[in-house]
Amino acid sequence: MTEKLGEFEIIKTYFSPLSRSEKGAFNLTDDAAVIEIPDGHSMVVTTDTLVENVHFLSKDSPQNIAAKLLRVSLSDLAAMGSVPAFYNLSIATKLGTTSDWFKAFAEGLLADQIQFGVTLIGGDTVATSGPLTLSLTAMGFVEKGKAISRGGAKLGDDIWVSGLIGDAALGLRAAKGKLSSISEENKRYLISRYTKPIPQTLLGPKLSDYVNAAIDVSDGLIGDLDHICETSKLGADIQITDIPLSRAASILVTEKPDYIDLILSGGDDFELLFTADKSFRAVAKSLTKMLDVNLTKIGVMVRRRSIEIFDENGNEYFIKNNGYTHF
Amino acid sequence: MTEKLGEFEIIKTYFSPLSRSEKGAFNLTDDAAVIEIPDGHSMVVTTDTLVENVHFLSKDSPQNIAAKLLRVSLSDLAAMGSVPAFYNLSIATKLGTTSDWFKAFAEGLLADQIQFGVTLIGGDTVATSGPLTLSLTAMGFVEKGKAISRGGAKLGDDIWVSGLIGDAALGLRAAKGKLSSISEENKRYLISRYTKPIPQTLLGPKLSDYVNAAIDVSDGLIGDLDHICETSKLGADIQITDIPLSRAASILVTEKPDYIDLILSGGDDFELLFTADKSFRAVAKSLTKMLDVNLTKIGVMVRRRSIEIFDENGNEYFIKNNGYTHF
Repeated sequence: MTEKLGEFEIIKTYFSPLSRSEKGAFNLTDDAAVIEIPDGHSMVVTTDTLVENVHFLSKDSPQNIAAKLLRVSLSDLAAMGSVPAFYNLSIATKLGTTSDWFKAFAEGLLADQIQFGVTLIGGDTVATSGPLTLSLTAMGFVEKGKAISRGGAKLGDDIWVSGLIGDAALGLRAAKGKLSSISEENKRYLISRYTKPIPQTLLGPKLSDYVNAAIDVSDGLIGDLDHICETSKLGADIQITDIPLSRAASILVTEKPDYIDLILSGGDDFELLFTADKSFRAVAKSLTKMLDVNLTKIGVMVRRRSIEIFDENGNEYFIKNNGYTHF
Repeated sequence: MTEKLGEFEIIKTYFSPLSRSEKGAFNLTDDAAVIEIPDGHSMVVTTDTLVENVHFLSKDSPQNIAAKLLRVSLSDLAAMGSVPAFYNLSIATKLGTTSDWFKAFAEGLLADQIQFGVTLIGGDTVATSGPLTLSLTAMGFVEKGKAISRGGAKLGDDIWVSGLIGDAALGLRAAKGKLSSISEENKRYLISRYTKPIPQTLLGPKLSDYVNAAIDVSDGLIGDLDHICETSKLGADIQITDIPLSRAASILVTEKPDYIDLILSGGDDFELLFTADKSFRAVAKSLTKMLDVNLTKIGVMVRRRSIEIFDENGNEYFIKNNGYTHF
C-alpha cells in the first residue's frame, strides 16, 4: 500500500505536469493514453532500457539520467526518419527515493520535452530492491512508406555520418578519470558528449527522402555499420582519415594513435550513420546549411561481405581489440 | 561486449520469431518498428512494469510470468475499449540467465500472442545485478472518439463488473499457503486466477458503444471504483450481496466473513468495472450470451462524493483495514 500511495503521489506531482500538452494522456490518471496519428503517416515505436551502474552511474545527476534515457530513444526514432511525438516511461526505483530526486528527474525530462518536442503520455512507477531501472518507449510519426530501415543500402552507396564520431567513448573514459593528458576544457566537452548526446531529431526526418539505409551510432561506428552491412547483404570500405573528429578527439589521437580504435568501435555518439547514392552529395550541402550539422562521407558500400578500414597510406587497418566481430 | 553478444543472440533466437507476423517489426533487427494504424482509429498505449518478488515470485514459471506481464497491459487496453495489437518488451535480467528460461518465457508470450491476437514489435534486453524487471508497452486501436475513460460516469449510472471478483486476492493468499481450510481443487482454481488472469479483451471493445466509464480491477474493486468516482466527480453505492463470487470464494466467505474485505479491496482480478445508464441492462444480456461472460450490476453512481457499501440487511459496511482510503 505504501508503494501504491507513493506511486500515485509521485505521478500526480512530478509526471502529470509533463503530460499536460496531450489531452489523450488524461493527466496520467487513466488506464492508457489515446493518441491520434496524422493522416498519411505510420507510427514508429522504440524501447530502450537503462540500468544504474550499467548504462549510467549512480552519481550522475537525475537531470542527466533523464536526458540520456530520452535521447537514446529519440535517436532511434531519428534513425528511422521519424519525427518524435510521445513517450511512455517505466521507473523501477528503491522505496524511499526522495522527492528531490523525482523533482530533478522530471526537470530533466521537461527540458528535453521542450528541446525535442515530445510529451509524456503514460508509464508505470514501481518499487525495486535493485538498481534504478528505467525503460522508455518513444513514439514518432513518419510519412507512409518513408521510414528508413537498415536493410536498404545499395552497392556503391556513399557512407555518411552526421556530427563528430568517438567523443562519447572518449568522454566515458574521461569521466572514469582515464584520460589524464587532456585539458580541463576538452575533458568537460567530451564528458558532456557522453552524458548528454544530442539526437539528430531534425536531420533524421529530412533524410527520409534521400537515403537508402540509416542507423544511429549507439553500439559503435563499425559495429553499427556492420548492422547495415548484414541487413543489406553488402560490405563497406571505410577511410579512417575521413572520419570526422572533434578537436579534443584529434588531439588525443595525435598523442596516442591507439585511441582510433576507441573511435571506431566505441558507442553512444548517437549520430546518424547512413548510405545514399551520389546524388545525395549536393543535398548534403543544403542540409548542412539548413540544420547547421556536419555531414561527412567516410566510405562506400561494396559487394564483398565484410568491412575493410583503410589508413592514410591506403593500407588496411585492423582494430586491435577487434571489437566489431563481437557483433 | 558479452552482454551485447548475449543480447543479440537472445533476440534472434527467442524474440524475433514472436515478431514474424508484423513486417514493420523488421525481425527486431532495426532501430524501431513502423506500424500502420487502421483508418478512423486512434492508438491506445499503456505501460506496466513487474519486478521479481514484488509483482511475481522468483519461483513462478517463466510462462506464467510472461502471461501475467502481457495480460496486465491487455487488461488496460480492454478497459479503454480498444482492440489489442502490438507490444514492446523490456527485460532487465541477471547476466547468465539460462537459455531455458528465455525459451520458456518466449513460449509463454507466444501462447498469449495466439490467444489474444497481439504481436511483439520491439524492446530491449539488458543486464542487471538486481531482481528480474519486466516492462511492457501494449498498443491497441479504438475507433476515433470511442475510447472509454474513467471520467465519464454519470449520476444514476448502474455500476457493473465482468466475471468474478476477489479470486485473485484469495489466490495470492492460497499461493502463500495462508488459506488452509480449502479443497485442493478450489485452491488450484484460485491460484490460477491470480497467476493467469484473463483480460477481457473481447468484452472491452464491445462496451465502447454503450458505457460511460470503465477501468480494470487491478488495485481492488473499491480502490478502482474510487478512481472512477474521483475522475467522474461522483460517488457510489455498492451492494455486497450483488458482488459476483466464484464458488471457491463463496465457500471461504461463508466460513470466514472477514474475507469479504479482501474481496472488496484486493486487486489483480483484471475484470472490467464500468458504469452505464439503464438501457445497458438489455445489452448486457446479449453480450453475456455472445461472449459467455458474466456481467453483474453491483451498484449505482450517486451525487455524494464517497463510496458507501451496504450489507444484506441494508446496513452500511466498513472495510476493516479500510484499504481503499489509501488511494
